[in-house]
Amino acid sequence: MKIIKDLILNQGTNLGNGILKVDSFINHQVDPRLMEQCGQEFARRFAPVKPSRVLTAEISGIAPALMTARALEIPVVFARKSKPITMPDQVYLTVAPSHTKGVLVELIVSPEYLGHGERVLIIDDFLASGATINGLVRLTQTAGATLVGIGALIEKEFEDGRKRLASLNIPIESLVCITSMENGQIIFKDD
Amino acid sequence: MKIIKDLILNQGTNLGNGILKVDSFINHQVDPRLMEQCGQEFARRFAPVKPSRVLTAEISGIAPALMTARALEIPVVFARKSKPITMPDQVYLTVAPSHTKGVLVELIVSPEYLGHGERVLIIDDFLASGATINGLVRLTQTAGATLVGIGALIEKEFEDGRKRLASLNIPIESLVCITSMENGQIIFKDD
Repeated sequence: MKIIKDLILNQGTNLGNGILKVDSFINHQVDPRLMEQCGQEFARRFAPVKPSRVLTAEISGIAPALMTARALEIPVVFARKSKPITMPDQVYLTVAPSHTKGVLVELIVSPEYLGHGERVLIIDDFLASGATINGLVRLTQTAGATLVGIGALIEKEFEDGRKRLASLNIPIESLVCITSMENGQIIFKDD
Repeated sequence: MKIIKDLILNQGTNLGNGILKVDSFINHQVDPRLMEQCGQEFARRFAPVKPSRVLTAEISGIAPALMTARALEIPVVFARKSKPITMPDQVYLTVAPSHTKGVLVELIVSPEYLGHGERVLIIDDFLASGATINGLVRLTQTAGATLVGIGALIEKEFEDGRKRLASLNIPIESLVCITSMENGQIIFKDD
């Protein structure tokens, strides 16, 4: 999507080591109209695979996942990174390395909201190494649900997440794809 | 709002000690259409005070805050609970006790997205003791922005948050108000 590409070029910052700062419109401040447009675009691309539930990881996945779920008129579930006291004792839990925090984070979903028969669309802000999304894939599989698609606002192709997810054999869509962030530059796939 | 009250009665669980489980539509699984309706209702109530920015706290505040910001056509900023590497070294930081986690949590906002001249509307999922919202109030004041309103999906009146915020002398709106959760019951204000 040209609008995200332009925002990255105008407001994004290449912090080095593959870290892209997009705090002004995705990760800290959010432009709701932009998220709505992204949600509508994901809904258009994934409607053919008939998702019944959107799954994301707190925190920055919530906005695009919510707007995608709104456009598809289905519920969204956000995996928690710590278990709230409202959650039952028996949960689905997996562990994934956090790219930007340098630590392992837990991803937890209650069996109450992810179960057999659901057709799960995973939506997140970034597809980088694929570690977080792979955690969501494992939660989906453990729940006995069917994974039907994966969508990310921004893909960093050079971190190989898409390759790691290829064996799933499901549609993977990103709204912009960055092929290189070397030497302080940001190079897009369609450049 | 009758729709939230009905959802609390049909799907909510009184876990005791004032803890209300609403994981099926607010805190873990989210109904996007409901959040959109809540956002539109907050926008209707707060449009007269002309907010320029919605401020919330990750995690469960993001969905209602995003939809409120969408309806008002303004950006939303979510205070982070840990400092991402994309954030500058100088930030606004305050500490608030977490009602449901029993620990102190940090609330962090970058000066890049909250500054002088902004008219801040705080939106969160719960108004209980007011501790988290008071943290957001302090961040707003530290940033030199003007606080123009506070909105919460669900108010637990018996935890006195509204009383603690009264001296701010700004509109405080909740979409449903619970006056008692004693003896396993859930009593609403307009019952």
